[in-house]
Amino acid sequence: MGQVAWKGLFLSLFDYKTEKYVIAKSKKVGILYRVVQLSILAYLVGWVFIVKKGYQDTDTSLQSSVITKLKGVAFTNTSELGERLWDVADYVIPPQGENVFFVMTNLIVTPNQRQATCPESDRIPDALCYKDGDCRAGEAVVAGNGVKTGRCLKDRDSIRGTCEVLAWCPVEKRSKPKKPLLASAENFTVYIKNSIRFPKFKFSKMNVLATNESYLKSCRYSTEHPYCPIFLLGNIVQWAGSDFQEMASEGGVIGIQIEWNCDLDKAPSECNPHYSFSRLDNKFAEKPISSGYNFRFAKYYRDAEGVDYRTLIKAYGIRFDVMVNGKAGKFNIIPTIINIGSGLALMGAGAFFCDLVLLYLIKKSNFYRGKKYEEVKSTSRKSFSSPTLNGNQSPDQVGGL
Amino acid sequence: MGQVAWKGLFLSLFDYKTEKYVIAKSKKVGILYRVVQLSILAYLVGWVFIVKKGYQDTDTSLQSSVITKLKGVAFTNTSELGERLWDVADYVIPPQGENVFFVMTNLIVTPNQRQATCPESDRIPDALCYKDGDCRAGEAVVAGNGVKTGRCLKDRDSIRGTCEVLAWCPVEKRSKPKKPLLASAENFTVYIKNSIRFPKFKFSKMNVLATNESYLKSCRYSTEHPYCPIFLLGNIVQWAGSDFQEMASEGGVIGIQIEWNCDLDKAPSECNPHYSFSRLDNKFAEKPISSGYNFRFAKYYRDAEGVDYRTLIKAYGIRFDVMVNGKAGKFNIIPTIINIGSGLALMGAGAFFCDLVLLYLIKKSNFYRGKKYEEVKSTSRKSFSSPTLNGNQSPDQVGGL
Amino acid sequence: MGQVAWKGLFLSLFDYKTEKYVIAKSKKVGILYRVVQLSILAYLVGWVFIVKKGYQDTDTSLQSSVITKLKGVAFTNTSELGERLWDVADYVIPPQGENVFFVMTNLIVTPNQRQATCPESDRIPDALCYKDGDCRAGEAVVAGNGVKTGRCLKDRDSIRGTCEVLAWCPVEKRSKPKKPLLASAENFTVYIKNSIRFPKFKFSKMNVLATNESYLKSCRYSTEHPYCPIFLLGNIVQWAGSDFQEMASEGGVIGIQIEWNCDLDKAPSECNPHYSFSRLDNKFAEKPISSGYNFRFAKYYRDAEGVDYRTLIKAYGIRFDVMVNGKAGKFNIIPTIINIGSGLALMGAGAFFCDLVLLYLIKKSNFYRGKKYEEVKSTSRKSFSSPTLNGNQSPDQVGGL
Repeated sequence: MGQVAWKGLFLSLFDYKTEKYVIAKSKKVGILYRVVQLSILAYLVGWVFIVKKGYQDTDTSLQSSVITKLKGVAFTNTSELGERLWDVADYVIPPQGENVFFVMTNLIVTPNQRQATCPESDRIPDALCYKDGDCRAGEAVVAGNGVKTGRCLKDRDSIRGTCEVLAWCPVEKRSKPKKPLLASAENFTVYIKNSIRFPKFKFSKMNVLATNESYLKSCRYSTEHPYCPIFLLGNIVQWAGSDFQEMASEGGVIGIQIEWNCDLDKAPSECNPHYSFSRLDNKFAEKPISSGYNFRFAKYYRDAEGVDYRTLIKAYGIRFDVMVNGKAGKFNIIPTIINIGSGLALMGAGAFFCDLVLLYLIKKSNFYRGKKYEEVKSTSRKSFSSPTLNGNQSPDQVGGL
Repeated sequence: MGQVAWKGLFLSLFDYKTEKYVIAKSKKVGILYRVVQLSILAYLVGWVFIVKKGYQDTDTSLQSSVITKLKGVAFTNTSELGERLWDVADYVIPPQGENVFFVMTNLIVTPNQRQATCPESDRIPDALCYKDGDCRAGEAVVAGNGVKTGRCLKDRDSIRGTCEVLAWCPVEKRSKPKKPLLASAENFTVYIKNSIRFPKFKFSKMNVLATNESYLKSCRYSTEHPYCPIFLLGNIVQWAGSDFQEMASEGGVIGIQIEWNCDLDKAPSECNPHYSFSRLDNKFAEKPISSGYNFRFAKYYRDAEGVDYRTLIKAYGIRFDVMVNGKAGKFNIIPTIINIGSGLALMGAGAFFCDLVLLYLIKKSNFYRGKKYEEVKSTSRKSFSSPTLNGNQSPDQVGGL
Repeated sequence: MGQVAWKGLFLSLFDYKTEKYVIAKSKKVGILYRVVQLSILAYLVGWVFIVKKGYQDTDTSLQSSVITKLKGVAFTNTSELGERLWDVADYVIPPQGENVFFVMTNLIVTPNQRQATCPESDRIPDALCYKDGDCRAGEAVVAGNGVKTGRCLKDRDSIRGTCEVLAWCPVEKRSKPKKPLLASAENFTVYIKNSIRFPKFKFSKMNVLATNESYLKSCRYSTEHPYCPIFLLGNIVQWAGSDFQEMASEGGVIGIQIEWNCDLDKAPSECNPHYSFSRLDNKFAEKPISSGYNFRFAKYYRDAEGVDYRTLIKAYGIRFDVMVNGKAGKFNIIPTIINIGSGLALMGAGAFFCDLVLLYLIKKSNFYRGKKYEEVKSTSRKSFSSPTLNGNQSPDQVGGL
């Protein structure tokens, strides 16, 4: 022993140990195993590598910047507002051109509101009254516009009236033009500039191609011009499956999805945005309370005496949410190895399944079980130099999985 | 050979090869292996399949649209502003009803500011002066409101004064009402409409249930009404663990999380939002510089002479951030197979561990090592028809892992 | 049989079955296998455990709240606006201090616009005309400011004129100051308060350290002060690789990334934000149509007669997008086991590869193939008590993978 033993120990480190296999001449199981192997191989090559691009490292943490710019004017002539021209500064809220913007298409204007007392709107159930006692002074009207003063205001001859409120007076008359005021907003255009960056791969791109300026001035996005970043509002709404005039009247929310799905193993010019449009608010006509989109805002003025007054606007319109998401992939050795490795590991599971069939489900299972499992008994008395092989001891191997 | 050999080759493709096993009649290791197997099985079934729903394909790229709408009025009577009623258009900033909205609950108003010269606030260290030389003309006051004109303005008898500045004059007097002005904002309600869509499964849902309209007009979210989308601001703040009056005075940020965790193998009606509330700014009273939430904005007016003046408002209040996230899962064969496969692969690791015990850690290790490993020597002279089996050659197998 | 057989069956459940290995005394393949094993081990320990911290459960669903606050004043003296001081309420849009804010640095002011008729700007191609017939009444000017009235307005002597439009008059004269008006915005500061929370681990932190207040009043973020949350706008733009004066003139978008990469196995004080800055819009000077950032907004006034007029402002400036992302990890037994298990499964793939070499690529492949695969034939007549081992039957084992 001694030095020789250590040398043997060291050398044995470089012996290769490989599993001993038993060849079972069972064509049934053999074909089954080949089918399983081919399925796993097909899954690995077809799904993992070709469809899911498992050989690539991916980056989904996209940095994105969206700048939107609307163009278009609309002319309206109503009894309330007279002749009026609406331009971008009038109908885009907020004006900053971020990824969420609202285009006002219909509105209820309540001009010259001042802090005063006046009758509450008679459409509000809580404001209805028969006598002063119904209007508790100092109490806010539920879902109303002001605080009750304690008086019940009635028309001559009528029994029922409405509570007087301290509010911005006169209060809003709730009636919305049936036809949207800015129906022509359908022809407005929006220019969407979107720069993206995949930080992991230090790859940047923009949805505006390096084409000549005049193209950008005249093009409109369509299936023929998939890389033109200028969209007609009417088209966007139509592609989202809605009717512009109905939406302009009631309001709604449209999502503009920009998807960047880039294979950076290919040329950068192959990495292009894909646009899709969907309606984000639900549009069930049967649920009026939860459909549409509107909000109230006010413009504040001060008169010569220094008293504030305001114009209250209930704006209906379409909110556009530009949502950018993306994924970039590039060849990397580590995911490639992992995917191959786990695919091969799956083969082990296949073999396990075929073993079950071989050992328990076919006619000659008993025989193969005896061949596969070699029983060894350690008895301190005698040490066999050949394994004890017993081909027909069925109950012993039942726990073979 | 020839044709016969090729036929044999082809047929041998469908022979099934299965690992040969040695049965070690060691109850210790056998029980250990069964325990390991059961643990892996329990992990696979319990954790991977039942808890993590590993048989499902998941979609986490939720498309979400949030529309918020506040209701409520507040009446205030202060020496500064007189009797005043505040409605939605007054206290909600911005008015659009997006997923982030701010409710103004306290404010410092500085009316009638004009471009002029006036003394800087004496609370700003950089504006304090003893003589004109301390106020370098044209220099901006650090953290101040204007640009120094070069004069030091003092009260009679006092040694110390403040620099004169060119600014919107008069400058803001920094004193905030101790009691929040709009303390009654606690009773305002917010109606949160949230539509979501899981694009991978083409599944859409809304947090507003298809109940009758009158329920939506009167309900308030609570543990009894978990699907009512109307929230009392006071409740939100309380559920987030804060005190409304204190928050209304100093300002703060509240997060409203809406979580959609949908198992699409079940009925769509089982996919319901879950709301939770948390305070997002930190509220350590010991760090006044970093607590609270406020900002300044101005309303601009023009007088008869065409000169601009403004009302500066320092607004304190509560910002609400509605954050939606979700996950949907649906049965899919691919993740199911992958999870079963990798679970079985884990069994291999268990077997490896038990092998270590069998071959190196138990008393009869030596014996089993000899049985497990069958040494074959290839000698060109003679070719044994049976393997050379040697049961007791300890140093050679030490590298057996 | 009977009871004895069942007992045997039960006991055999606790026999340990271990694969029988053949020791191939091939040093080449042995060394190859050790190299593969070491590579996998190195990958597992080095990449999976040390670099990727595979022993940790991670949370990437960060809850974040950003509050921004600008400080700084600028004094301008132009022929158009006269002496004017700009403070935070003037140049920050929107004023709320959210995670996206815009600092106005240059502007084109068109004061006193009223609804009227006037000549369209002669820079708009669609508005050029030679005779009234070129201006179809009621038609909106493409990319223009109003609706044509049908008249073509010409200067004396000139052949070409511009269409008269109904618009907010006078229309904007398109000329932007070459030098940015608020060039001194470079010295403005922004205080970014960011609170984060990892819900899975119930861990909260803020980017403002619990230092004394005076430090926060005077510090500026730099490599020496990496935890100071107050940033000089000029520095941010410089770190993003842009020139402030050029950006102030044309506008642009800057991203401020805050990254929280927290190892919660360490002390909470080790979890600190990391700031980075990048330009988000592209800045290719050769594409003027797609560079820069600007938008139009208006301030509305009402004169003594109750007629609305407005000041139109085309604002150029820098939009800052504060983007927070993060990841927290904490030790968890489940990912640890999974990663070890799948690492070991990878070893199986290594063994498979070495088997290929042993059985098909080395000189003595034939011999080893015979040793590894033990052919068993099931013949109903006789049952061998020892396996049929045949060392040299090459064509039969070719399908051995």
